[in-house]
Amino acid sequence: MNIDFDKAGGLLPAIIQDHRSGDILMLGFMNSVSLAETQRSGEVVFFSRSRNMLWKKGESSGHALRVRELRIDCDADALLVRVEAVGPGVCHEGYRSCFFRKLESDGNAVITDERTFAPETVYGQQNREKKA
Amino acid sequence: MNIDFDKAGGLLPAIIQDHRSGDILMLGFMNSVSLAETQRSGEVVFFSRSRNMLWKKGESSGHALRVRELRIDCDADALLVRVEAVGPGVCHEGYRSCFFRKLESDGNAVITDERTFAPETVYGQQNREKKA
Repeated sequence: MNIDFDKAGGLLPAIIQDHRSGDILMLGFMNSVSLAETQRSGEVVFFSRSRNMLWKKGESSGHALRVRELRIDCDADALLVRVEAVGPGVCHEGYRSCFFRKLESDGNAVITDERTFAPETVYGQQNREKKA
Repeated sequence: MNIDFDKAGGLLPAIIQDHRSGDILMLGFMNSVSLAETQRSGEVVFFSRSRNMLWKKGESSGHALRVRELRIDCDADALLVRVEAVGPGVCHEGYRSCFFRKLESDGNAVITDERTFAPETVYGQQNREKKA
């Protein structure tokens, strides 16, 4: 299987889906090393575009993502990772999902979800685990 | 709401999810124009990276994606589009979802889904609607 890492500068978007509920938890990016490490360890490892380094989800929060199934799309340039999420949520803002806002047609974003944890107690004030 | 189109050269990944089943159908990319056109028309319009142009999903197949809900993530750099999919499938290979293959730990991709339509009858031999 030739995975197409070239289309976006060595990175593939990786959709993270709760394997039980089907809810989308977040989207990150993987390069070939982070994909191999995800497959080896059984827990999701992204490549952080902002920090330009591998980023094991949960390294500071403990909110790891255990891989239940890995899927690849028709063009081999996007991943779908079905996971069991450890902890109350994946978002550094304190929500279960990073997609906690609805985008309205007037351009406003409206929070529709409830916080499931207090981010400052998990990440501290200065050490928030950031998304890719 | 300031959407962060700059992080990936003007494009945001857009996850397409069936609003009823929760299944992931595909992943495409949107620039600001395609997002605006998606919001205006109520049907998904991507930006095709390979063809470098706007691409209305279903323009050749008729398999359009009607927007039921648009969500944006914490960093405002990824979209989740919950849709009603018109037709038997979104994939140019003839499947309901583009993620019709499981990626095994040995690197092999295994088809797990059944075809829902014959792609050659929908797209013709030379005019297959391609993914982004």
